[in-house]
Amino acid sequence: MFVGFISDNAAGVHPRILDAVVRANSGYCPAYGEDDYCRQAQAEFRRLFGGDIEVFLALSGTGCNVLSLRSALRPWQAVICSDVAHINMDESGAPEWGAGSKLLAVPSVNGKISPDSLDIYLPDIKDCHHATPHLLSITQTTEKGAVYTPEEIRALADKAHANGLLVHMDGTRLANAVAALEPRGVNLRALTRDAGVDLLSFGGTKNGLMLGEAVVFFRPELAEDFRTMRKQSLQLVSKMRFVAVQFIEALRDGLWLENARHANKMARLLADGLAGVPYMTVREPEANAVFVRMEPERMARLLQDFDFHETDSASHEARLMCSFATTEEEVAAFVRAARALI
Amino acid sequence: MFVGFISDNAAGVHPRILDAVVRANSGYCPAYGEDDYCRQAQAEFRRLFGGDIEVFLALSGTGCNVLSLRSALRPWQAVICSDVAHINMDESGAPEWGAGSKLLAVPSVNGKISPDSLDIYLPDIKDCHHATPHLLSITQTTEKGAVYTPEEIRALADKAHANGLLVHMDGTRLANAVAALEPRGVNLRALTRDAGVDLLSFGGTKNGLMLGEAVVFFRPELAEDFRTMRKQSLQLVSKMRFVAVQFIEALRDGLWLENARHANKMARLLADGLAGVPYMTVREPEANAVFVRMEPERMARLLQDFDFHETDSASHEARLMCSFATTEEEVAAFVRAARALI
Amino acid sequence: MFVGFISDNAAGVHPRILDAVVRANSGYCPAYGEDDYCRQAQAEFRRLFGGDIEVFLALSGTGCNVLSLRSALRPWQAVICSDVAHINMDESGAPEWGAGSKLLAVPSVNGKISPDSLDIYLPDIKDCHHATPHLLSITQTTEKGAVYTPEEIRALADKAHANGLLVHMDGTRLANAVAALEPRGVNLRALTRDAGVDLLSFGGTKNGLMLGEAVVFFRPELAEDFRTMRKQSLQLVSKMRFVAVQFIEALRDGLWLENARHANKMARLLADGLAGVPYMTVREPEANAVFVRMEPERMARLLQDFDFHETDSASHEARLMCSFATTEEEVAAFVRAARALI
Amino acid sequence: MFVGFISDNAAGVHPRILDAVVRANSGYCPAYGEDDYCRQAQAEFRRLFGGDIEVFLALSGTGCNVLSLRSALRPWQAVICSDVAHINMDESGAPEWGAGSKLLAVPSVNGKISPDSLDIYLPDIKDCHHATPHLLSITQTTEKGAVYTPEEIRALADKAHANGLLVHMDGTRLANAVAALEPRGVNLRALTRDAGVDLLSFGGTKNGLMLGEAVVFFRPELAEDFRTMRKQSLQLVSKMRFVAVQFIEALRDGLWLENARHANKMARLLADGLAGVPYMTVREPEANAVFVRMEPERMARLLQDFDFHETDSASHEARLMCSFATTEEEVAAFVRAARALI
Repeated sequence: MFVGFISDNAAGVHPRILDAVVRANSGYCPAYGEDDYCRQAQAEFRRLFGGDIEVFLALSGTGCNVLSLRSALRPWQAVICSDVAHINMDESGAPEWGAGSKLLAVPSVNGKISPDSLDIYLPDIKDCHHATPHLLSITQTTEKGAVYTPEEIRALADKAHANGLLVHMDGTRLANAVAALEPRGVNLRALTRDAGVDLLSFGGTKNGLMLGEAVVFFRPELAEDFRTMRKQSLQLVSKMRFVAVQFIEALRDGLWLENARHANKMARLLADGLAGVPYMTVREPEANAVFVRMEPERMARLLQDFDFHETDSASHEARLMCSFATTEEEVAAFVRAARALI
Repeated sequence: MFVGFISDNAAGVHPRILDAVVRANSGYCPAYGEDDYCRQAQAEFRRLFGGDIEVFLALSGTGCNVLSLRSALRPWQAVICSDVAHINMDESGAPEWGAGSKLLAVPSVNGKISPDSLDIYLPDIKDCHHATPHLLSITQTTEKGAVYTPEEIRALADKAHANGLLVHMDGTRLANAVAALEPRGVNLRALTRDAGVDLLSFGGTKNGLMLGEAVVFFRPELAEDFRTMRKQSLQLVSKMRFVAVQFIEALRDGLWLENARHANKMARLLADGLAGVPYMTVREPEANAVFVRMEPERMARLLQDFDFHETDSASHEARLMCSFATTEEEVAAFVRAARALI
Repeated sequence: MFVGFISDNAAGVHPRILDAVVRANSGYCPAYGEDDYCRQAQAEFRRLFGGDIEVFLALSGTGCNVLSLRSALRPWQAVICSDVAHINMDESGAPEWGAGSKLLAVPSVNGKISPDSLDIYLPDIKDCHHATPHLLSITQTTEKGAVYTPEEIRALADKAHANGLLVHMDGTRLANAVAALEPRGVNLRALTRDAGVDLLSFGGTKNGLMLGEAVVFFRPELAEDFRTMRKQSLQLVSKMRFVAVQFIEALRDGLWLENARHANKMARLLADGLAGVPYMTVREPEANAVFVRMEPERMARLLQDFDFHETDSASHEARLMCSFATTEEEVAAFVRAARALI
Repeated sequence: MFVGFISDNAAGVHPRILDAVVRANSGYCPAYGEDDYCRQAQAEFRRLFGGDIEVFLALSGTGCNVLSLRSALRPWQAVICSDVAHINMDESGAPEWGAGSKLLAVPSVNGKISPDSLDIYLPDIKDCHHATPHLLSITQTTEKGAVYTPEEIRALADKAHANGLLVHMDGTRLANAVAALEPRGVNLRALTRDAGVDLLSFGGTKNGLMLGEAVVFFRPELAEDFRTMRKQSLQLVSKMRFVAVQFIEALRDGLWLENARHANKMARLLADGLAGVPYMTVREPEANAVFVRMEPERMARLLQDFDFHETDSASHEARLMCSFATTEEEVAAFVRAARALI
């Protein structure tokens, strides 16, 4: 059973990042994030996003999202997000439990929502019987593999800000979005801070880290007393140097983007390879996910050798995820297997 | 500045454990704890504690404690613990926030509490105006370096069970307690399960792991739906194999106990070295912590070169912590520095 | 401005109930629910539902719902409810905050859900990334004025129980449902306990009390330590006799049902009166709410003299609510005003 | 068994207040606090405290305290309070659960704390491993019957404010403190707002209301979005006019203070009557509570006819509470019974 396509977290650690971890295992070091590795990792983020941000490392993507929500919201304030948002669908109710906040889901197309979709919940701001919407959370790339353009994010942020809402981006796969848009001249900052995002969950693990995520605040006042809140939120370990060093290595010379480019390229290769398979309908990949609808019996047979998610049992849609580790051979093997069932 | 004595988490990773991490970085692997590494780690725990336990890996010590409390308690049920308990003093209110539970502190001697100390809160069990005590949590070794004997734990557990309370052990440094008591023929199981403990936070990080802790249930029915609760509690990362493999390596041939023996031995060496220093009063070390009272001006001068905690500013008590990584040279250097101030 | 149709809680207190409150103001009385009034109120509930229930008084409908959820659920367990459920739409996120629980909304017709609608969330029971569905909550009468029959409730309960879910009824207007179904020979018990409901929020305030609701447990083991939990949940006041005496008066000789019958009758009268108004489409009232779609300009003019909720701005649907206090004259006045705009 | 001395909430409702409730039962009224009664009650508070406050009604004392904490604190911020504080001892963990906040108890004398007692927790403000102290909560009159002077409150508030802490007063029995200090020319405002209090739980129930408390904000910015938070906190009922009208009646012409004066006077009478009883040591009453130490066998015999709290079983201390309803005859009866045991 090949599990490499089920998610980008089925891959291991990028060798350079693991080497950096090994090198960091030298001597003693202050614990709990008060060390030079952590400071250097923060400096790398500031290099990318600007010197006037606040940034803190954390352990998991769900953790980062909950830290973001706890920073930005009081427990009676609510989050508007897409109906397929990871925070809404795949975090075991951690946002509701951890932040106390209600999630208000709006319809989406491939995981993307439109500014108009906020309208239904805006009147709640003034109604004491409804949780008060105070944050818009969008996912980049979306859970359905789509990529928001800077213009789309700007339009959402303008609508949100005009109504007193903050804007959070769940950037678990933000690197892949940057890689997707760089041909258009879009960089990391343009796609986040400059597009109106207020705070960001920046993904590391799916990009090749062993574990490590970061919360980036473009409005530093939201980060007040973050360290205590992070500890309370169970997102701090003592030997944080081993988390920090991974980010240093990923960020210092663009490895993070290189990894994303590779994953996107593999997705493109996979989509191209499957394009001619008659029992499949391949959605054009926007980043590193390939969504394919296919005849269910053949899907069942493919699932005997390859593990992947059936993302919609009604339409027989499946998701094939590529990562920094995906090889051309692995792609070719899947394409061969798919073609063998024609 | 030498920071090796400030805590056992200032050390890095034991080389064997880091090697195991590196070896685990091979190919793809199912995420979120559903992989062979995690199963093997659980098997190692079952070998030590018995086949009929439940055990789950987690990320941090505070995380394990909150997972334990959430498993064992409803939010209106309270925890009885010592006044210096880590859950009460050093976890940023994570237990109160995460489990909803009130902590009821009782007096302690070197962090150890007595069965009688529960009496003050037992009437609360029947009073709707008070949170209902439902769990006794003890720390082994204690935050003040003391070691509970199996008999002491049994007496506490009997008192707790007779009153309907569960018994939790915060075993961040449980390995050091086992190492301390093994000359008396006490082993890990005798000191936990067989002494009446119901659920255990088993520490890994301070014992030489990069990061990794475990919750061990001797009453498996308390672990129902633990996986969902762990995810909600932000104590799950996707690439759990890298946590699991550390425990496999630590547990499979006794490295965990070897590390603890070494740390305890270094503490003994340190205490012996400081014994004759006239401006110091050295408390007999029971495991890997040396508590020393000393003349404050000399403490200030020692703090210029060695980082350690002043644990009581009134009595000028300081804590020197040894770990698997502490060397005889480091101990000798501190002793020399202390003697130089005579 | 006549506000009598905006909700059944715009009415005051039924005179008999207020008299009972006044009579209870005699001498001293133990506080916090440990008094004879509270015991007698509980006895009245046992007379209606059976001697082997547990029942506790509370303050508000939202309070009762949160108490129910906290009793039945651990914070990582979720509630399946209709998309228009009061707990989902009109309780300011109290269930998410108070119980920690995620609400999983399913589509409904006039607020009623079908057994099949549970299917979408049942797989979540075994998936650690999703909150675990553990409770089905239905509202009787629904937020859209519909009435579940005993057979419909039984079908839902059977489906829920077969999948390990408990069944909660939000019975804020349960009395009106009983009044609606009594011509068919259905009584209170048949519509709740005997239909498979496990725990019930029993409404008082909208039925003519000043304030007062109750949580009724048909599975008493769910009520363990309820008194402490109720206090922690801020649903206990000291002078509970004044809450209890209202229930005694309402329940002892059927006043609760008489009030509901009257409200339902007024709704019927109102619907009949509006039936011939050409710019309106009147939905057949099932209990004490009349839902009317009408031409928006005329709605705006009616809203100048009568306060009522526009419940759907797209379809121009409005809700007119009758209560124990609604008079034939008030109904006639609205009908006259509506007809005057023809 | 006479229960009138067990607490001031064993009394019923002052007749004038109950009459006002009855009069308010006239016609329809908007629900949920948006009515003229509520506005008028708020106006009465503004008359007493100044026009630039925010004030909201609530249901219970514990409710008001939790509303205050939720308004003033993020869940990782902590409360410093006395070791005998009601929030710490008698609210079933509602503050921990409801606000997420840790309570940091400091020693007290008769329930009063000193500015110096804050020192132990002030370093926690900068330490991420400890919940961040952000609020000082004091109780007036204290749980042990003592009365803070304006000067004492000012000293506490200055210390708190100088360290970035807000000041909350649990004023369940604030009226009795005002009555105690009015001979010194101290009024309600001097004892709260003008002494540095930032937010106040203002007690009604123990002063003669059926039920009703209020949260008063002297820093209105803390009350942002309070209505939604109150609803989420289960402290809102629909027919709020019946809560509001009680405050209108209590506040409009000084009934609240008259009630407190009477209760204090009865406590004085009781203390004087017991002064000569040789087996008792009567602490000088400062407001409406009389604390008496007495020989335990005689206490047991008194408890056969009079219900009261033994507040310290070690020192055989008991509390006798007087209220607006206490009569000279009731006091005399207790004194007679006490003397009969000489």
